[in-house]
Amino acid sequence: MPNRSEGINLNIRKASPEDIPTILRLIKELSVFEKMEKEVFNSEELLRENLFGNKQYAEALIAEVDRIPIGYVIYFFNYSTFLGHPGFYLEDMYVSPEYRGHGIGKKLLKYCAKIAKEHKCKRMEWIVLNWNPARKFYEQLGAKAMDEWVLYRLPGEALDKMAE
Amino acid sequence: MPNRSEGINLNIRKASPEDIPTILRLIKELSVFEKMEKEVFNSEELLRENLFGNKQYAEALIAEVDRIPIGYVIYFFNYSTFLGHPGFYLEDMYVSPEYRGHGIGKKLLKYCAKIAKEHKCKRMEWIVLNWNPARKFYEQLGAKAMDEWVLYRLPGEALDKMAE
Repeated sequence: MPNRSEGINLNIRKASPEDIPTILRLIKELSVFEKMEKEVFNSEELLRENLFGNKQYAEALIAEVDRIPIGYVIYFFNYSTFLGHPGFYLEDMYVSPEYRGHGIGKKLLKYCAKIAKEHKCKRMEWIVLNWNPARKFYEQLGAKAMDEWVLYRLPGEALDKMAE
Repeated sequence: MPNRSEGINLNIRKASPEDIPTILRLIKELSVFEKMEKEVFNSEELLRENLFGNKQYAEALIAEVDRIPIGYVIYFFNYSTFLGHPGFYLEDMYVSPEYRGHGIGKKLLKYCAKIAKEHKCKRMEWIVLNWNPARKFYEQLGAKAMDEWVLYRLPGEALDKMAE
């Protein structure tokens, strides 16, 4: 992809509570793009509670062009028992379609990598749908597909039953 | 598997800093069992820093039989942007081979599920090697294999390069 980000006025920064409506709008934009809009149950109240509350389960970055938010990242720290260090987990990265092809995604990843190093993380991880063409891009960056691992998920109802 | 845990004196509790040598010993036991002992770089110092330090990247549970530690769990909270809630991520669960078949694994999972509910988690997740026979057991519990997702990992050196 061409990197034309030199020609645009890009700013990446950590999100604050004032960004909550923007984050929710961009989450919904992403979900429409992924044809998953019916699976979004997040809200301004939940974002406030879980990203900016007493216990912060995740953190957010905002990407702005000419001070207008056009992308976001949501991340948290995971942990590797064998490495003994935290890892940086990229939950979401989104750039509005009209701003793609400017290298903004790569700049967001670089910003994430710097945060990861500040926390002494030994790796960065994320999951990708197996048909997603971005896989090639990730592999060019040096990321490895951990094909031998399968993600298991115990959804809400089964979790409730297990907790009884 | 037969559940004979009624006949044993099982206690599950949250770990404290005094348990650090025990946790490290059990992590090494697990790594030998998985034939991955050369990949363990964790240490008492790193466990103290990351599990009991200023920022706790993960938490641990200890399973004891007759007050002797025979298993452990390491977990942390992840986050689902679409659900808007944290999730419970099971990084490690281990029971010493001589104590298996007593339903201790299931009791550990139940304990985890209760912690998950306290944190308003909407799901529990973990990864499994695709050849692991425990997959059937997990599916019987109601867990779903998220086959369409691939885990990507950017290892240490590539992360360093990205952060430059």
